[in-house]
Amino acid sequence: MFTFVRKGLFTMDYQIRPALKTDMPAVLRLIQQLATYEKEPDAVEITVEDLENDGFGPHPIFKCHVLEKDQEVVGIALFYFRYSTWKGKTIHLEDLVIDLHHRHRGYGEALLKSVIAYAATQKVRRVEWAVLDWNTPAMKLYEKMGASILEDWNIVQMDRTQYLKVLK
Amino acid sequence: MFTFVRKGLFTMDYQIRPALKTDMPAVLRLIQQLATYEKEPDAVEITVEDLENDGFGPHPIFKCHVLEKDQEVVGIALFYFRYSTWKGKTIHLEDLVIDLHHRHRGYGEALLKSVIAYAATQKVRRVEWAVLDWNTPAMKLYEKMGASILEDWNIVQMDRTQYLKVLK
Repeated sequence: MFTFVRKGLFTMDYQIRPALKTDMPAVLRLIQQLATYEKEPDAVEITVEDLENDGFGPHPIFKCHVLEKDQEVVGIALFYFRYSTWKGKTIHLEDLVIDLHHRHRGYGEALLKSVIAYAATQKVRRVEWAVLDWNTPAMKLYEKMGASILEDWNIVQMDRTQYLKVLK
Repeated sequence: MFTFVRKGLFTMDYQIRPALKTDMPAVLRLIQQLATYEKEPDAVEITVEDLENDGFGPHPIFKCHVLEKDQEVVGIALFYFRYSTWKGKTIHLEDLVIDLHHRHRGYGEALLKSVIAYAATQKVRRVEWAVLDWNTPAMKLYEKMGASILEDWNIVQMDRTQYLKVLK
């Protein structure tokens, strides 16, 4: 386990740590907040129980770091491994969310750095994520941190209703 | 194990089956062919040994279906699980490749269907993948099959050189 701390002159301002099962209600609240920000408020079908089972069972399928301030979770970075046929094992950052009332304090960058620090320990060849093309503040942050933004890929999706039709 | 067969009037034309470790040289050849098609011929850093270790160890991190014709692997679909914070477990199709000399025979669609059939057995809420925005034949196929193409997301990447700089 690790913690990242950012120190003020004399005091610790916040803590970043791996999420615990008991954080999942707070994590879901931030997931829902992001969905609303991304103009898809009804898209979240997942439940706290899903997150608890999927992230903390015998074979966890995601990892999550939380940023805690004054004993409250105000930011999350949720990620997992992917596999590139060009580069091998990579880390995919699925969600990076800072609570609306705690923006513009460098928390997003600090959480992203915590994921990158984990990536370095795993020696993956790449860290990647997706960003909505109108989310200018996020894209500016990523570019400032040295990331490449690829604009020539489209994402293709089939939800269950769509893919079951293919099998008919 | 399963096989998909497509029958001509009297004969079996090809077979789709889960990849074996011994298929990995053929799989890498097709991965390289796709990278060249995608105008990134030097991007493939992965080796046959990587594919063998990553796909066939105690904890395989990808799955692969191959399309075999006349005892030769002429198509691959390589995929793995991802995790959506909205939908839960999903399947991501990383690479769908048909050998250049075997195009326009419905092999791509057949391989995609084999992945979708697997997705249905796993009850995932979504199957997804990425497509280059100039790859019109591929996009037409996906739309014909009922997929949604999302154009408002950009992909953000940091390779190891980029992300190590962030930690300095």
